[in-house]
Amino acid sequence: MNVWPGFTPMARIEVVIDGEHVPTVRDLLLEAGATGYTALHGVSGFGHHGQHEGRLLFNDRNSLSLLISVVPLEMAEAVVAGVRRLLDGQHGVVFISETNVSRPEYFRPADPDDPPLA
Amino acid sequence: MNVWPGFTPMARIEVVIDGEHVPTVRDLLLEAGATGYTALHGVSGFGHHGQHEGRLLFNDRNSLSLLISVVPLEMAEAVVAGVRRLLDGQHGVVFISETNVSRPEYFRPADPDDPPLA
Amino acid sequence: MNVWPGFTPMARIEVVIDGEHVPTVRDLLLEAGATGYTALHGVSGFGHHGQHEGRLLFNDRNSLSLLISVVPLEMAEAVVAGVRRLLDGQHGVVFISETNVSRPEYFRPADPDDPPLA
Repeated sequence: MNVWPGFTPMARIEVVIDGEHVPTVRDLLLEAGATGYTALHGVSGFGHHGQHEGRLLFNDRNSLSLLISVVPLEMAEAVVAGVRRLLDGQHGVVFISETNVSRPEYFRPADPDDPPLA
Repeated sequence: MNVWPGFTPMARIEVVIDGEHVPTVRDLLLEAGATGYTALHGVSGFGHHGQHEGRLLFNDRNSLSLLISVVPLEMAEAVVAGVRRLLDGQHGVVFISETNVSRPEYFRPADPDDPPLA
Repeated sequence: MNVWPGFTPMARIEVVIDGEHVPTVRDLLLEAGATGYTALHGVSGFGHHGQHEGRLLFNDRNSLSLLISVVPLEMAEAVVAGVRRLLDGQHGVVFISETNVSRPEYFRPADPDDPPLA
């Protein structure tokens, strides 16, 4: 279902992490083929396991960051798997949702056979 | 339609409010069963009724906050209803959309019968 | 597909731009009929063409802004087209996705024939 004529559906990957881990997640995103990201810093949050033990995920005042990266649908699973491995044992959450872009070529990894973009 | 294999669809609830009301909305979210939230502060915005009288919703420089909470789909309606009641007579907007998570158990309320999370 | 009973689907338009261009994009949104927006400042980001030439889109520390505007679905295409024209030759990206609101009348442009909102 693409309700946006002229747009291309993409995967929007969002990661909430401690600010100190931003460089690691950013590098992972770019190595996995993402062509860019947007980062919001000074984010606060609270999270705990939705279970009776209630292990705290994070409870920080303004030390978190929200990283947003938009990648082609077929790349999303691999990118998120890499981020998830990175977050193992760390505080942090990952969300994935559909977004749509008007210039999909900006979000696709380089292919040496492609003609240069105008 | 779940286009993300291995992910579980959830409701992403976003609330834009005056910063002073963040504690109230946060408590409402947690009491309604949300297991966490992300808060972005120093947000600015402008809004008015889409009608000829044009009542101003908010027109602030950096005094707003954006709260994001991800909850199971079946909890979304009750959570949003609570937020809406709270916003009655206040400035503020609520959005709801679909997002997807890899570890849904983190976003579900505690159930004493569940085994502890590994 | 509207999975949110009692909510109305809308278009969520997000624009990431240099902070200096916020007033221009904001005016364009409001002139195009948007009744409001939310702005997050101090955003950083990195982007390049997904092609071998790798033209840099932006690589800024905290000088970007993220503008979010929610408009009726039928207005989305025109609004985004205007934003895209504005971004031609500028750094910046535009995303569009579905969100849902409980009070759609707040997001519709004024119509002199409408009764006043309660």
